[in-house]
Formats: sequence, structure tokens, C-alpha cells
Amino acid sequence: MDRTIIKNVNIITMNKEKEVIENGVVVINGNIIEDIGKSELLKKYAGEKVIDGNNGILMPGMVNTHTHASMLPFRSLGDDLADRLKKYIFPLESRFVDRKFVYEGARAGIAEMLLGGVTTFADMYYFEDEVARAAKKMGIRAVLGETVLNFPSPDSKESYGGIEYGEEFIKNWREEELITPAIAPHAPYSNDTEHLVKAHNISQKYDIPMMMHVAEMDYETEKYEKEYNMTPVQYLNSIGILDENFVAAHLVNITNEDLEVVCKNKIGIAHNIGANSKGAKGVSPAVKMYKRGMKIGLGTDGPMSGNTLDIITQMSLVGKIHKLVNRDRTLFPASEIIEMATIGGARVLNMDKTIGSIEKGKNADLVIIETKSINMHPIYDYYSAVVYSANPANVDTVIINGKVLVKNRKLIGIDIDDIIDKINSIKNSIIKFF
Amino acid sequence: MDRTIIKNVNIITMNKEKEVIENGVVVINGNIIEDIGKSELLKKYAGEKVIDGNNGILMPGMVNTHTHASMLPFRSLGDDLADRLKKYIFPLESRFVDRKFVYEGARAGIAEMLLGGVTTFADMYYFEDEVARAAKKMGIRAVLGETVLNFPSPDSKESYGGIEYGEEFIKNWREEELITPAIAPHAPYSNDTEHLVKAHNISQKYDIPMMMHVAEMDYETEKYEKEYNMTPVQYLNSIGILDENFVAAHLVNITNEDLEVVCKNKIGIAHNIGANSKGAKGVSPAVKMYKRGMKIGLGTDGPMSGNTLDIITQMSLVGKIHKLVNRDRTLFPASEIIEMATIGGARVLNMDKTIGSIEKGKNADLVIIETKSINMHPIYDYYSAVVYSANPANVDTVIINGKVLVKNRKLIGIDIDDIIDKINSIKNSIIKFF
Repeated sequence: MDRTIIKNVNIITMNKEKEVIENGVVVINGNIIEDIGKSELLKKYAGEKVIDGNNGILMPGMVNTHTHASMLPFRSLGDDLADRLKKYIFPLESRFVDRKFVYEGARAGIAEMLLGGVTTFADMYYFEDEVARAAKKMGIRAVLGETVLNFPSPDSKESYGGIEYGEEFIKNWREEELITPAIAPHAPYSNDTEHLVKAHNISQKYDIPMMMHVAEMDYETEKYEKEYNMTPVQYLNSIGILDENFVAAHLVNITNEDLEVVCKNKIGIAHNIGANSKGAKGVSPAVKMYKRGMKIGLGTDGPMSGNTLDIITQMSLVGKIHKLVNRDRTLFPASEIIEMATIGGARVLNMDKTIGSIEKGKNADLVIIETKSINMHPIYDYYSAVVYSANPANVDTVIINGKVLVKNRKLIGIDIDDIIDKINSIKNSIIKFF
Repeated sequence: MDRTIIKNVNIITMNKEKEVIENGVVVINGNIIEDIGKSELLKKYAGEKVIDGNNGILMPGMVNTHTHASMLPFRSLGDDLADRLKKYIFPLESRFVDRKFVYEGARAGIAEMLLGGVTTFADMYYFEDEVARAAKKMGIRAVLGETVLNFPSPDSKESYGGIEYGEEFIKNWREEELITPAIAPHAPYSNDTEHLVKAHNISQKYDIPMMMHVAEMDYETEKYEKEYNMTPVQYLNSIGILDENFVAAHLVNITNEDLEVVCKNKIGIAHNIGANSKGAKGVSPAVKMYKRGMKIGLGTDGPMSGNTLDIITQMSLVGKIHKLVNRDRTLFPASEIIEMATIGGARVLNMDKTIGSIEKGKNADLVIIETKSINMHPIYDYYSAVVYSANPANVDTVIINGKVLVKNRKLIGIDIDDIIDKINSIKNSIIKFF
């Protein structure tokens, strides 16, 4: 047996009872959580390999439900400027994005996510098999969707080439342990009905997620109002593509009727507060979504939108911005925010049976937040300390599927200097363009 | 001569032209910036002591224009709960706050600020001479105001005891190089007119700042509306206490007429976006304030309000929240946010002649943000990288008045373990109370 014992930790379990275990112990056997309890467990498992958590906070690995990790080499381009998508993102992508760019960008993005405590991420981009290659090599859990849209893209000379590329990718990667391939039409407004239905058919055929930006843009709402007298959500519902495998990113501009549709079809919601606020898009009714028991998790969006890829930064923003816009400081208490960041995100991706909480039989995706740094003092409530005091640099240890990938705040077995060299080289080619 | 050369840095000067110098050099002589320029300067000052900035970002030390550092032992108590001030803060203070508490809390708060790149902080609390003692010992620059209010406080059995305590404090500390003592009536609603005028007289007599929470609470606005048919700002103006030495924290609930008053009287504004959002107080019209050229800087508020004490976290929030509520992603570009965090804060405290920018003849209060971590890659714009990519743990080096206080992310000459031991011991006594 290949057992590792984590001791001397205060455990945020995120099980149904939201149990918190002080001075707790978790026993990992291979890639599975075998046992969990108080320090007495140490006697039962004497003689095994031990990780001392130094009185840190052990929590489920965080789930980033929406990003475009490979865009990291573009980070901060177009900050504070209007019409960034059409003036910056699409032109930059058409000029620079190729296989190598996607692979190197993904490596860098995954490194940042790991160091920030993200153990599962959902990604939409081009050459998504390159993201899969990076994720597999680095050992992170991922849901990866090939982008589909109505114009030529970096990986396809034809419009909608992502459909074919995506199906091939799904076939090649669906047996991988940590990778879930998916299909990802960019948005309603950048696809026609025919191809949205085709993408949905693929999602049904392989029982894999279909991810899409929905109800993010004002012009999107206007288009569907004008053309169909519907909201984007109602339109997607009318063509029959909303189901449990559907993951909608953003859902900022949505009505109460839309919420009924979301609820009834059990679609997952990726809430990206940092990107939505920085992009001045608006605030999704995430409080209602959470209270109605919808599947809602947190996302960073890409590095050109929210800039950073860790979920800790998002948690603090979720707390602050929803309290502010609703003028109620009691909304979204810290425990609910951590729920969205962990088991909530797992529900969004239909992975809550295997990840998202610290419970016997689940996969060992775990994070230790150190509590030695001065910003983590004092602690009266572990949830509050993680949401309002921590920053991504307080992440000390990250374990995915039983394997330690971050220890003492450093990546294990990953050559970060090489990753950074590659990013610098891509950056130098981009600088010449401006 | 006692010279130190900082080389291999990209300098955000925050001089009038907002000059940025890539691969720059700064020469410190004693506590003063003697020279600044490109790498050629190295020849002129060959043979001096050198700090290699490793291609980091050298920026002016950040100014925290409003906090209550000593409340650190209470951090996170009352998070997500209603009526925190009267149900939690005042009762906790009356039970626990004594000289030792204030001193130890200040030491911990200062340690956190230093590690986060804050080189000057403005503080309002009780036993403010204890905060001064901690600040002096640790070497941080500080503006420290003794609290005045209409009920007995931890350092005074009498109501308004802070007036006498404060004047004594001012007399004893006004000759200190790094300490500016001040007077700090808690708020309009917690003081009567007589004592507000008395406090103002002290501010005039010694030419020192007068700091106050203003226009933060809904019940405050209601009270002045009902009793005087005025806003809080108009009331303070009507009793003649607004002038260049006045620093108003918050100014959330203010009208366009109030802004004219603020402008005309040249009062300083401490903008605390993190605390104002987490407390669901509202959003100050900081964009208007900035555009009108008012003296506006950033503040963290106390650890029970905004929870963290660094200004980097605030900068990202300022960008995101003002863009969001104004639905305009071009508002508050990163350079303006860094301006508020540095020279803007210095203006608020009337210290902009000596600190807040990197210019010849100014005091050497400097911060190096390291750019090696993956979250700091790539950099196309130094302002943007600091505002949207950095977290407080990216602060590598902090120099105050020519002295290195943080290096390689660690405090120099400060016993952080002792500080943490003291906070843990205070925490243990507080836990018993609950």
C-alpha cells in the first residue's frame, strides 16, 4: 500500500455537514482519501509516510470553472482599454497563437494555478490537445474544451473547424485519467444555430461537457432581443441544447425567467467576478443562483480578462462585490464562498462524486494553506481566514490525485525556469508587433 | 558618505511626468534619493554598495492613508455579520484594549504593512503613543492620531479624554523624524460640536493632521439630515473645521455640493474600497475626486473591516470596482491607481514634498516588486503588472528613509516570531471570551 498521512491540519471538509476538524488527520491511499478524522487516527496508521501540515488549513483543491490558460503570454495587453475583444484579443490570436504558443501558455497558466491551489480547471481555447498535453505532463485535473466559432481560427482555416477538431480531440483524450475533453462553442453570437446543435450532439454522443460564454456582452443581449425577441438563455433553450452537461460562463445579463431555465435544465454556472468587474460587464445574480441551489462555481476567466488565475483572489472579490451591490454585509458568508470554490465548482463540471470535498473514497485533491505568515494571524474562523486574509502565496502544499505537486510554496518536479524562459521568448516576439 | 545604489530595476517614478525608466538606477545617500537615471549612472557611482533589483519594479513606497493597525488581534471577528461596529467592535475594545494590546497589535500590523510594501501609514486608535513606540522601533513612517469620542474609551474613563491624551501625545512626539502625531475625532456622530472644534484647535495650534471617519454610515447621513438639514460634510464645514490638515476617511455618502466643499477646503481623502465593499457601505465617487484633482489616496481601514493591511490588494479592487459600478472599463487606468497609492497618499497627508515619488532630494522610501514569480509574467506595462498581477507576496524589498527593512520578502532586524507569539497569546485570551 502507498499511504501518506497528513497531520497537524485544520480541515475544511466541505462535506454535506460542512464539518470542520481541528487538529485533524487525512489518510491518502494511492490517489484516494482513505480516512479522515482527529489526531487519534495517527495511532491507527502508525509507521506510514507523514506530511506535517504545521497547523495549516487543509481544504479541498480549488476548482477554476472557466479560463483560457494559454492566453497567459497576452496577460495585461488591452487592460483599461475599450473594445478589447475585437480590437486586441482576436487580432493578437490570429497573429500569434499556434501549437507552441498554446502549449507554453498552458504550462505557465497551470504553474500559476497549481501555486495558487487550483487542482482542477476548465479551459476553452484553440489547439486544446496542446493544453491537454501540458495538463497531463504536469499532473493537474482538467476539463478542456475545443473552441468552435463562425470564423477561421488559429487552428482552423475554415469557420466552425472546431467541431471536427474537437471531436477528434475528444476521441483521442477521453480515456485519460485526469483529463475530460469537452466541446466549447465560443458564444451564442459567434455561432449559428446549426453548429450549436452539432456541438450539442457531440456533447451528448460522448457524454462530455459543453462549455460556452453566455449572457456576458451587452451586444449579445441586444442581438437576441432584436432577432428573436428572446434573451440569449431563452434562445439556447429554444434550440434544445441546455442540459446537465452544459456549463455557462458569466450569465451576467440574465432575467428571473432565465434563472428558471438554468434551474430546470440543471446547467452549470461559472461565475467570474474578477473578469466581470474589471471588464465592467456587470454583476451576475450569483446570490440568487446559490440560494436556489443551482450548480455554481468560481472562475478566473483568462489572463487578458481577470489577469490572475488563482481562485483565492476570486473568493475575496465575490464576498466584497456581492455584499456591496446588494448593500448587505451578511450576504455570501465565507463558508458559502469556499463551497463555490470547491464542491460547487465540482458540481458545475459534474465531478462532485469524485472531487470537491474531503471525504472518504474521494480523489485526494487537497490544498494546505499555511497559517504562519503574519497576514494569516489570528484565526478565529478558518473559512474567513481563507476568504478574507489569504493571498495565493499562502498556498503551501498542493496534492492532486494523491501526488504532491506543490510543497513549501514551490512546484515539485516542474521546471519553472524553463516555463518562464519560453514565456519570455513569446513575449519578445509580441513586443515587436506593437 | 553612506551611499547605496539600486541597479537593474524598472522605475515607476511617479514624478510629474509619470516617467518610467527601464533598466534604471537610483542612488541613495543616507536617507535621501541623491540621483536617478539610466544604467550609465553606475559608472559615476562605481565602488559604492549595490542592491541588485533583478529586473524588478522599483516604485515609491506605498502610503496607507487610513487604518487601525492595532486591531489586528481582532481580525475577522464579526465578518459577514450585521451591525459589527456596535455589537462587536466597541464591546471587544472595551474589554481587551490596553497599552500592551495596542503595542503588540501595532507591531503585527506594521510587520504586515512592511511586507506588503507600505512605507507610510496613517492610523487612528487609542493609546496612540504605543503605536508610535512600535512604529519608531520598527522604522516605518507614520501619521498617528489619538481617537476622540463621546464615551469612555480604553485609554480614558471620561468622555472626550482623547483631547487631553492627544495633546500630550502630540507634544511628546512631534520632534520625531518618522512620526507625525495627529488628532483623530472618531466621526461626526460620535463627537459634539464643542469637542470637534477643540480637536480642530489642536490641529491648528501644532499644524498637524486631523483625521476622521466622515460620510461612511447611512445612520450618520440620516442624523445630520434630521438634526441640521445638512450632509455630514456640510455640517463639518459649517462649524469651520475643514482645512488642509483635515483627512476624511471614506466619504462614501456625499453629494456633488459636498465635493465642492472638499475641493475648496483642500481636505485629504482616504479611499478605502476594500472595507467599503466588504462592509456593504457603498462606493465613494473616487473617479470624480481624482479627476477634479482632489487629494485622494488609498487606505486599508482596520483589520476588522478590510482584513488585510497592504495597499496592493486595494489597488486591484479600486480598478475593478470603479470600472464595474460606472460600467466603463477604461476608468482608473493602472497608472492613476498607482498614483493614488503613492504620491496621492502623500498629498493627503501633506507629505508630498518629501515622499510619494522617486525624485532627487526626496526621502528614500522605496519598494521593489519582484518580477520572477509566474504571476508577474509577462510584463508589457509596469503599472498594469503591479495593479492587476501582483499580490503582496511579490514585494521583495522595502526601504524606508534609506534603511532596508524588507529583503528577499523577509523582515530585516525585526523579530517576527516574537510578534506572532504575542498575537497568539492575545488571541487565546479573546477566544475565552466567546
